Amino acid sequence: MSRAFNFSAGPAAVPDAVLREAQAELLEWHGERASVMELSHRGAAFEAMAAESEQDLRDLLAIPDNYRVLFLQGGATQHFAQIPMNLAAQDQTADYIVTGAWGQKAVAEAAPYVRVHTAASSEAGGFRSIPPRTQWQLTDGAAYVHYTPNETIHGVEFFEIPDVGDAPLVADVSSMFLSRPLDVSRFGLLYGGAQKNVGASGLVIVIVRDDLLARQPRPMAKILNYRAHAEQHSLLNTPPTFAWYLAGRVFKWLKAQGGLAAIEEINRQKAALLYSAIDSSGGFYSNPVQRDCRSRMNVPFTLHDSSLDAPFLAESSAAGLLALKGHKMVGGMRASLYNAMPLDGVRALVAFMHDFARRHG
Amino acid sequence: MSRAFNFSAGPAAVPDAVLREAQAELLEWHGERASVMELSHRGAAFEAMAAESEQDLRDLLAIPDNYRVLFLQGGATQHFAQIPMNLAAQDQTADYIVTGAWGQKAVAEAAPYVRVHTAASSEAGGFRSIPPRTQWQLTDGAAYVHYTPNETIHGVEFFEIPDVGDAPLVADVSSMFLSRPLDVSRFGLLYGGAQKNVGASGLVIVIVRDDLLARQPRPMAKILNYRAHAEQHSLLNTPPTFAWYLAGRVFKWLKAQGGLAAIEEINRQKAALLYSAIDSSGGFYSNPVQRDCRSRMNVPFTLHDSSLDAPFLAESSAAGLLALKGHKMVGGMRASLYNAMPLDGVRALVAFMHDFARRHG
Repeated sequence: MSRAFNFSAGPAAVPDAVLREAQAELLEWHGERASVMELSHRGAAFEAMAAESEQDLRDLLAIPDNYRVLFLQGGATQHFAQIPMNLAAQDQTADYIVTGAWGQKAVAEAAPYVRVHTAASSEAGGFRSIPPRTQWQLTDGAAYVHYTPNETIHGVEFFEIPDVGDAPLVADVSSMFLSRPLDVSRFGLLYGGAQKNVGASGLVIVIVRDDLLARQPRPMAKILNYRAHAEQHSLLNTPPTFAWYLAGRVFKWLKAQGGLAAIEEINRQKAALLYSAIDSSGGFYSNPVQRDCRSRMNVPFTLHDSSLDAPFLAESSAAGLLALKGHKMVGGMRASLYNAMPLDGVRALVAFMHDFARRHG
Repeated sequence: MSRAFNFSAGPAAVPDAVLREAQAELLEWHGERASVMELSHRGAAFEAMAAESEQDLRDLLAIPDNYRVLFLQGGATQHFAQIPMNLAAQDQTADYIVTGAWGQKAVAEAAPYVRVHTAASSEAGGFRSIPPRTQWQLTDGAAYVHYTPNETIHGVEFFEIPDVGDAPLVADVSSMFLSRPLDVSRFGLLYGGAQKNVGASGLVIVIVRDDLLARQPRPMAKILNYRAHAEQHSLLNTPPTFAWYLAGRVFKWLKAQGGLAAIEEINRQKAALLYSAIDSSGGFYSNPVQRDCRSRMNVPFTLHDSSLDAPFLAESSAAGLLALKGHKMVGGMRASLYNAMPLDGVRALVAFMHDFARRHG
């Protein structure tokens, strides 16, 4: 048995080097005579690790000082609800830009807590493009504007940060977080689940501009209140300590790769290689997304004959290429090319696709 | 370096055998050619593990069929808020029995969502006892009655399940879960964080009676709604897959120990040994809790002279006895004796305490 190239959309591949490190110190971490997961989150060793991981993340993203970094729970989905709770009063309006299934979910989970206005949507076109900025119908005085920089299911990615005027821009960065540099100062709040580019599921990172924490628009439990978490440095309650530790190891690994500019260059090559294989397959494979917004992280594609899906999945798995089945909403295949996927993995996939098309074409 | 006896109150010791198993298969799990944390929660392998872990938990606790088992996030603290959201309307009353710091927190986090009535509290006496059932001032028609079977900080444990009439009994079992058999049929809802007796932090187990899921007392996001999680078998969003996997390994380990009756017997011996050492120390050590409700899981104790605290902690750590520092609210020491603490660990602690008292007495 050996590790395969894992194209899972999430929970997704973790860098080999990080897993081996975690494995080596799983029973005894840092001279503590215990596993990192067996230590109090209020002890010196864990607190030092937590502070260092935050600093490494700040270094990677060049996070300005007026932003707080929170390590929380609940997945991005819970924050679909927590964001309006924290940033808007019940009768305020928040604008949502919907470019795929995750944007739709964000709208649905926010609806009990704020007046949701879908200011732009590409649903009518099957989520294959980004509505032109000039057509967005933003609300004057909106509490915030929410969008999804990368749609994991539909494979649609924004490569520019939209200008939305004075309203704070809020982004679910789950599936593109740390895949390239990002100008944090353009955002009011960024959030994302860790299970794509940051390690294990069960951890959410929220980066929020200080002034937004002063908004306290409704009574709510402290545990749902971002300001309370910020005041306690994410130690308001017991955090997911092992997932946090793994995130810290991933940040170190990213730094060792040369940081976000370096990983972006590799991610660019990986995506170019796969889209080129799809586009040059003479229609055997196809991707429906408009070229200027094709995701670098999640590449959905279909085979020209869906009766070939089953053999494609069986043979690719046998060839050491895992988890290529597409999401049921769009069918076909999906290859997720997060940071932990090496260029060699994409080369192997492209070679397999070429061979498969030759044999079944 | 070697693993020490770890008395941490949580995140707490995980059974050695479970950690070694997790270590061995951290990179390749179950023939999947990937780590369990790198797999989709919607794949067959993870779903089979999830179903098996639930069945093992059902076997251990003899959970009746009309109860649903949920594997969620947020820590018990988040559920302090989610419970009233799910079980009560804003203007209903819920009764709380407060026997320590965690009961107090439960009250504070519930308050934004329900009319909280503290029906009994031992705060005036410093949380050293359980108010007699005859003195509880329960509310007619309360949405539920909440209590904390074991208070981790104050070391106070209920050994009988209180009879509260028709209102559903809700219990935060975090620090006594799976330490002994429990008659689930007496409860409306049980919940607890995993980081004491079930593995890693970041996972909460909720066991809820079917009929309570029909209560839908307010509009709220699906992600906060227990019924939505039950309908999706806890796969409404990405669960904390690694913590869930670890919980499953802990359940197998517990079964191999002989189940909850067997572990209760060991836990009883461990607690008896330590309380006896405290009580027979001639006042060198003391525990303030009334004897009939002394916790078997968390044993707080003070030294007769607090200037000995620092040497006690330094010497115990050097002797391979970790994390004995008490919570700042009560000071002194605390030894947590969860399932993963072997009898030999308590023997070593007691021997150390005896020797320390002899040298400093």
